[in-house]
Amino acid sequence: MEKADQIIHAKWIITCEDRNRVLENHALVIKDGKILAILPSKNTAELYQAASEQHFSTHTIIPGLINSHTHIAMNLFRGLADDLELMDWLNNHIWPAEGKWVSHDLVYDGSLLAMAEMLRGGITCFNDMYFFLDATAEAAERAGMRAHIGLTVIDVPTAWAKTPDEYFAKGLEFYQRYKNHPRITPTMAPHSTYTVSIENLIKVKELADQHQLKINIHLQEAPSEVEQSIKLYQKRPLQRIQEIGMVTDKLIAVHMTQINADDFALLEQSKASIVHCPESNMKLVSGSCPVEQLLQRGINVALGTDGAASNNDLDMFGEMRSAAFLGKMTANDPKAVSAETVLKMATINGAKALGIDHLTGSLVPGKAADFIALDLEQIETQPLYHPVSQVVYAASRHQVTDVWVAGQQLLKERQLVNVDEGEIIAKAKEWRDKIQQKEAVIS
Amino acid sequence: MEKADQIIHAKWIITCEDRNRVLENHALVIKDGKILAILPSKNTAELYQAASEQHFSTHTIIPGLINSHTHIAMNLFRGLADDLELMDWLNNHIWPAEGKWVSHDLVYDGSLLAMAEMLRGGITCFNDMYFFLDATAEAAERAGMRAHIGLTVIDVPTAWAKTPDEYFAKGLEFYQRYKNHPRITPTMAPHSTYTVSIENLIKVKELADQHQLKINIHLQEAPSEVEQSIKLYQKRPLQRIQEIGMVTDKLIAVHMTQINADDFALLEQSKASIVHCPESNMKLVSGSCPVEQLLQRGINVALGTDGAASNNDLDMFGEMRSAAFLGKMTANDPKAVSAETVLKMATINGAKALGIDHLTGSLVPGKAADFIALDLEQIETQPLYHPVSQVVYAASRHQVTDVWVAGQQLLKERQLVNVDEGEIIAKAKEWRDKIQQKEAVIS
Repeated sequence: MEKADQIIHAKWIITCEDRNRVLENHALVIKDGKILAILPSKNTAELYQAASEQHFSTHTIIPGLINSHTHIAMNLFRGLADDLELMDWLNNHIWPAEGKWVSHDLVYDGSLLAMAEMLRGGITCFNDMYFFLDATAEAAERAGMRAHIGLTVIDVPTAWAKTPDEYFAKGLEFYQRYKNHPRITPTMAPHSTYTVSIENLIKVKELADQHQLKINIHLQEAPSEVEQSIKLYQKRPLQRIQEIGMVTDKLIAVHMTQINADDFALLEQSKASIVHCPESNMKLVSGSCPVEQLLQRGINVALGTDGAASNNDLDMFGEMRSAAFLGKMTANDPKAVSAETVLKMATINGAKALGIDHLTGSLVPGKAADFIALDLEQIETQPLYHPVSQVVYAASRHQVTDVWVAGQQLLKERQLVNVDEGEIIAKAKEWRDKIQQKEAVIS
Repeated sequence: MEKADQIIHAKWIITCEDRNRVLENHALVIKDGKILAILPSKNTAELYQAASEQHFSTHTIIPGLINSHTHIAMNLFRGLADDLELMDWLNNHIWPAEGKWVSHDLVYDGSLLAMAEMLRGGITCFNDMYFFLDATAEAAERAGMRAHIGLTVIDVPTAWAKTPDEYFAKGLEFYQRYKNHPRITPTMAPHSTYTVSIENLIKVKELADQHQLKINIHLQEAPSEVEQSIKLYQKRPLQRIQEIGMVTDKLIAVHMTQINADDFALLEQSKASIVHCPESNMKLVSGSCPVEQLLQRGINVALGTDGAASNNDLDMFGEMRSAAFLGKMTANDPKAVSAETVLKMATINGAKALGIDHLTGSLVPGKAADFIALDLEQIETQPLYHPVSQVVYAASRHQVTDVWVAGQQLLKERQLVNVDEGEIIAKAKEWRDKIQQKEAVIS
């Protein structure tokens, strides 16, 4: 009899390995925050002894979802302005609100609100790009989530930093503080090629090499971005960063709705990852990432919600469904971007993009115990023929009942364990009262 | 003091009138199943005396959602097969399953399952096209929903009818039984121009004229349908039914992803309604209905989920969000198909399509008390700047707490009043066990 910490029995376990398996009446055995074994429930009693044993007889367990691109503190600007041209939305609504209100406190409260939303929706890990990085990290420590936090660089002064040098300096301080944290990982996050000079992009690249960090960048999000780059530099954005050596397996290229033949070849050779944000791309009419073509070339495509100010949620179940729908449309093929494909984009492909697929993203002995339980015995997911189809095409994030990160239970029967929902909502209301314009917001 | 049956107070009421209003701290006064008054909550005590008074202090009330196109009994085939070419899906999965299993009992159990899903998701009225109409009507009587039920005609034998004549005969029997029912309304439902002969379409048109019935038809759903029609008849499907006088304000043209200049003109002149099913169109790669262009010409566009076998849910919140996303993409304009627009498509425009906008679809004194309460004080919908934005872009159907049809409460604190969830789920499982192939369905 081997000792373990927890045994979690479930009706189904969807592993999200390369050769995905759907196991029925199996159990996860957890020890020291890791998966010790996965085996038929009926065999656990003779092999393992655990302090805690839980039964999820109407649930499927899947790996924790990975939100591979977001700006979580922007949750406090959710629904402030919608249905606008991008530049009107930014210039007249979001940037003025950010300029006036972004601070350590706003980022902490907004991040905690976003983490409450993400945990309630089965997300265990996120990859963020924003300001006041310490505030986000402190919220992640409190909530218990796995957090990748970008050292944002942008040639525009904000409340967080006034000059590129200040962004680099504050980012490096953050890196030094968190570089050895077990769940919080610093990354490089130059905003884009149109808001960061080539000199500063080179500096980003050098720091990333020096510290072995991933580089997140908004890239070829919309046609206008590519057109402007060609006009100014006679090169596409991807080509510009390729020339400074940034297109490698460390690159996380976010959006990439505009991809020509040269881009495909470059992405394929480099082993860079793409983060697809279908709902943001649709709502802002940015374009359609050719997901099926990328996947068929073996390019890794992960999934992100983008920020809630634009999108207007951090719902990876909705995002999976939208990725399947948009992916089929873009490929003009109903067989493209299947349920299993998008489930992998939301789990193991996210882990690959973030460079943590040795650690999480699928349910395999030795990996961290990052997983969620989803109750499928509800009206909305009956009858049930195929668990993977049900998870992607019929289930809602409200069917997530329990969430674990590194073996720690963070959501239990839909109740958040480490944070207080009422307190988070009260803070959100306080910020709303401060932020909302004097003009009537009821329209 | 005027006597009333119920007074329902809410933080917000969104009326969905032509000039939409968002009222704060108002109340609905209900009498004899109708809205007697809408007024500030603080003024109710001096004017009305009601047997029951309820307070929804964190909710918005909106009109009950209208699912304007669906095949509800197909809920029992939800997720049976996905990610397939339409003809493979139909020929090798859906039609064999239907051929073997569709019966009065399947349609009754499937309809009740679908109604439980719809009520839990804030849908108070649906417009159905399927077989065994009596079974659907019996389920609607039990559930208490408002149901428009199509007299299906198709030149293909099914378990319900072997010949077109039998479809007409059974349909007319159904019409006679339900023509005076207060909540159940028969409609004509020829399946499509490629599955019903022109002679039978003419007969449909004559019966519709005789009994003053709406005509639902799948129309110009995909490019291949239009191409085939031009090849066989040198005419587009819309033109074919226009020549027999079917394109009038009685027409409910479902899908319409293929619309040319002549079609636009014809739809505009005729005052026909369109039902847009964005998720079905995306998942099956049928095409994109040009919603913004239709609306700008004053053409009425309603919203439907289509059947759960293809889609795979009856979720009008998801459908609203998808309609906004796809509508913006199709118009290439982020201002197109706004939150308020899709909320109207899901309510008053549905009532207009079904010919019941004098009775329901918006919250106005004199109309039926068909409305739902949606709790917005949850993590996922905080902070709240604009209630309409929150309902469409952030809220989920799981935030619907209470539902009324004609003043009768059918969902109370998320519990169904007239039907038993456990029994419905048990029936769904029984059907699953019968329907699922002998081959392993776990894949």
